[in-house]
Amino acid sequence: MKVDLNCDMGESYGLYQMGNDEEMMKYISSANIACGYHGGDPHVMRRTVELAKEHGVSIGAHPGFPDMMGFGRRYITASAEEIRDYVMYQTGALREFAAASKLELQHCKPHGALFMMAMEDEKIARAILEGLASVSEKMIVFALNGSAVVEIGRQMGIPIAKEVYADREHTKNGSIVLTRTGPTIKDYTEMAQRVVRMVKEGKVRTPDGEEAEVTAETICIHGDTTGAIELVKQIHAAFQQAGIAIQPAREVLNVS
Amino acid sequence: MKVDLNCDMGESYGLYQMGNDEEMMKYISSANIACGYHGGDPHVMRRTVELAKEHGVSIGAHPGFPDMMGFGRRYITASAEEIRDYVMYQTGALREFAAASKLELQHCKPHGALFMMAMEDEKIARAILEGLASVSEKMIVFALNGSAVVEIGRQMGIPIAKEVYADREHTKNGSIVLTRTGPTIKDYTEMAQRVVRMVKEGKVRTPDGEEAEVTAETICIHGDTTGAIELVKQIHAAFQQAGIAIQPAREVLNVS
Amino acid sequence: MKVDLNCDMGESYGLYQMGNDEEMMKYISSANIACGYHGGDPHVMRRTVELAKEHGVSIGAHPGFPDMMGFGRRYITASAEEIRDYVMYQTGALREFAAASKLELQHCKPHGALFMMAMEDEKIARAILEGLASVSEKMIVFALNGSAVVEIGRQMGIPIAKEVYADREHTKNGSIVLTRTGPTIKDYTEMAQRVVRMVKEGKVRTPDGEEAEVTAETICIHGDTTGAIELVKQIHAAFQQAGIAIQPAREVLNVS
Amino acid sequence: MKVDLNCDMGESYGLYQMGNDEEMMKYISSANIACGYHGGDPHVMRRTVELAKEHGVSIGAHPGFPDMMGFGRRYITASAEEIRDYVMYQTGALREFAAASKLELQHCKPHGALFMMAMEDEKIARAILEGLASVSEKMIVFALNGSAVVEIGRQMGIPIAKEVYADREHTKNGSIVLTRTGPTIKDYTEMAQRVVRMVKEGKVRTPDGEEAEVTAETICIHGDTTGAIELVKQIHAAFQQAGIAIQPAREVLNVS
Repeated sequence: MKVDLNCDMGESYGLYQMGNDEEMMKYISSANIACGYHGGDPHVMRRTVELAKEHGVSIGAHPGFPDMMGFGRRYITASAEEIRDYVMYQTGALREFAAASKLELQHCKPHGALFMMAMEDEKIARAILEGLASVSEKMIVFALNGSAVVEIGRQMGIPIAKEVYADREHTKNGSIVLTRTGPTIKDYTEMAQRVVRMVKEGKVRTPDGEEAEVTAETICIHGDTTGAIELVKQIHAAFQQAGIAIQPAREVLNVS
Repeated sequence: MKVDLNCDMGESYGLYQMGNDEEMMKYISSANIACGYHGGDPHVMRRTVELAKEHGVSIGAHPGFPDMMGFGRRYITASAEEIRDYVMYQTGALREFAAASKLELQHCKPHGALFMMAMEDEKIARAILEGLASVSEKMIVFALNGSAVVEIGRQMGIPIAKEVYADREHTKNGSIVLTRTGPTIKDYTEMAQRVVRMVKEGKVRTPDGEEAEVTAETICIHGDTTGAIELVKQIHAAFQQAGIAIQPAREVLNVS
Repeated sequence: MKVDLNCDMGESYGLYQMGNDEEMMKYISSANIACGYHGGDPHVMRRTVELAKEHGVSIGAHPGFPDMMGFGRRYITASAEEIRDYVMYQTGALREFAAASKLELQHCKPHGALFMMAMEDEKIARAILEGLASVSEKMIVFALNGSAVVEIGRQMGIPIAKEVYADREHTKNGSIVLTRTGPTIKDYTEMAQRVVRMVKEGKVRTPDGEEAEVTAETICIHGDTTGAIELVKQIHAAFQQAGIAIQPAREVLNVS
Repeated sequence: MKVDLNCDMGESYGLYQMGNDEEMMKYISSANIACGYHGGDPHVMRRTVELAKEHGVSIGAHPGFPDMMGFGRRYITASAEEIRDYVMYQTGALREFAAASKLELQHCKPHGALFMMAMEDEKIARAILEGLASVSEKMIVFALNGSAVVEIGRQMGIPIAKEVYADREHTKNGSIVLTRTGPTIKDYTEMAQRVVRMVKEGKVRTPDGEEAEVTAETICIHGDTTGAIELVKQIHAAFQQAGIAIQPAREVLNVS
């Protein structure tokens, strides 16, 4: 039994620091690297790729809207074609730094509002997937269970890694809501056990106390969650006990 | 006898139009495509790559400083490492759109102040060339004769295409000044003849009436020069008479 | 009988030109000056303020979303507080150049998506009006008839100039749609007569052939409409015949 | 005996945090507030103005180059006119938030490379001062002793507050170098005593052990210096002992 553990990385910008990449990189198998639109800059991108390489972490593009002021979290009513081209621009920029480090991009995980809009809008999901596939058919895309990306990826034969969140609540229909974990999760040990259950049983309890079915191929943990490092350590410990191996998405999905 | 004819392209941005790419693309062999920092945006980049493909024009990156307000023409005292990463970021972004169109990047020609700083500063020239070579050793770099890029490219074994300008004056020491052509050039026919002489004899008359030696492997013509379309037509006619073939830099330099 | 004639101005940016401000400024009574977020830059703002002063044209702020790539025409789900602060930031920046020319800002007309969002969302309309009124209670705000801005401005005692469009169609409920004029308007003379009728009778025919009621206190004409200069000349001629005086919004609304 | 204590403030941007404004604001008399070009955004500007008001701290504009990626620390070869307009744009934007809080701007202190370029280049110094004076003749400008701003301000009758640095070394000719304090300063108490001596005796020891003459009308302390809060507390204590009152620049210079 194996699962990928991913985290957003490289979101610092110039003198502005974001997250604790150096520490978090020790514990994950896939890094979603910001590409300069919502966070990150060329110099940060290079350093983050190199840091991932040092730790043997697989890398992917984490493209966002051109909205540094809103950190890419605000919906922008760009056309599907514009969004596709934003994703390709940023993915290509990161691919160049990857190539300089003799690495390939494993995956793409759109950021923030772009991630949500691709989930909700088939046209946008299709445009992004077509854009990425026009360059590499093996690039894995990360998406929530209910996302339009999952269905269109299936139609197009593009590998999609289904994602659950270690530090967020999930809804009853099996998809996930981006609200912060509330009072139902008491401590990091319990959060880690919840993740184990999602991986092993494909189930999670919603804030309303209902049981939801999920598919956990890659687990997202946010570097800026309070106690993120403590949480990821607990997940590592819980996985070891449960016999779950942490491996990059490419291994989990058997994409060669 | 053959020479490359290059032009800056894809510098429009959102609703802002710059140049007349559709018309100019008919006459050139290499397009320097802006990459979103001083001009250009992802959507424009895609369209420009596709337009070049339609016309069989070779493409290259035209990276600039992150300074849309100054159109990349202002020196910014960034470090050599920052500049290298700006160049790689933009080149990678363009390479993605090229890949989507099943094209390879032939060359890179830094824009504006970045071009001048690479000419004047060995450290910057070296950083840019090392960055580009870390991804592709065959990428041609365009540079003026006196540029630090020429010497360092020679040391590193990177192909450099030496450039002259159809619509600018040249200095006596064989390099080129970025002042607009003045009263010495009376009409387009004469300008075209001057270009022919640079290609065939490797000579050009300076504004002071002196004779300068130049190496013309690629000729730059600016799309926003008054009468640029008329000038490029005259150059075509003059080349035909003189038996000079217009071919992309890769052919001129025999880079496979 | 008097009415204001307004036009968006100062939307050039660095080397990028937009519109023909020098010509259009001769014919209007109020200039909506872009403030650097969707278009315009500090240098352009200064020149546009000075140009307006030369022609005795009243000036106002034309703030937009921070989205140069989309020219401020894309909705961004910023909070009402963020939007208020974007409007104030830009208005203040313009007010500085106005002060340097010993001018006061007459009005504010939000641009593009910001204009539409203020029309549709009471919370945003209120935030913008409160922000502007916290600095100047006499600043006029331009809005379409059906806009939330009109009602909230009325409640708050802020002067609102109700706007119609010379070069757009209007809907039956008296508000206005931002679609380009279609086949119903055959020529500039007819368009000018339509404007006269809106001013004199408060009526306009919709594309469906219905009669709509409008309040025309200020008439917008877009500088980038094909034949804008010809259209504005025709409006001038038609107004002279009809005895309609073109005066800045402050005079039309009697705001001292 | 009185002196102003100033600190750069409001340099956070969107989700990116910079400095500890809430704590530092308790100890200073003048806040230099970033204006959205090198740091700060409209929302941060509003909050910083309000925070300064709560603490009775005088406020000023802290305009920088449009270079968020380089945090305004890189020289950009903009023209004096462009720089003047950048300063006015940002100053006006801040003045709007000040007006909303019923405050006036006391001063302007250019940031980073802009500060240095105004020091070194008379044309730039003059352009900035003329721009600011065209709106308010009473606005104080902060500058180092050797700055071109000091001399041109004297010629123009613009009040200039001469600045020394609590956390930087000074050069022998009485001006100041922007290198971080080195081994000559052992602890915060000693740094505080050095500041007291600059205020009372107008003297400071350079890193070379020489004695330099300085004029300390306003003292700058950087919020991001390690131990900045501890240092400012020590300065407060040392000033109390030495009978030096901390007052805003307007009081120190007697500008009404």
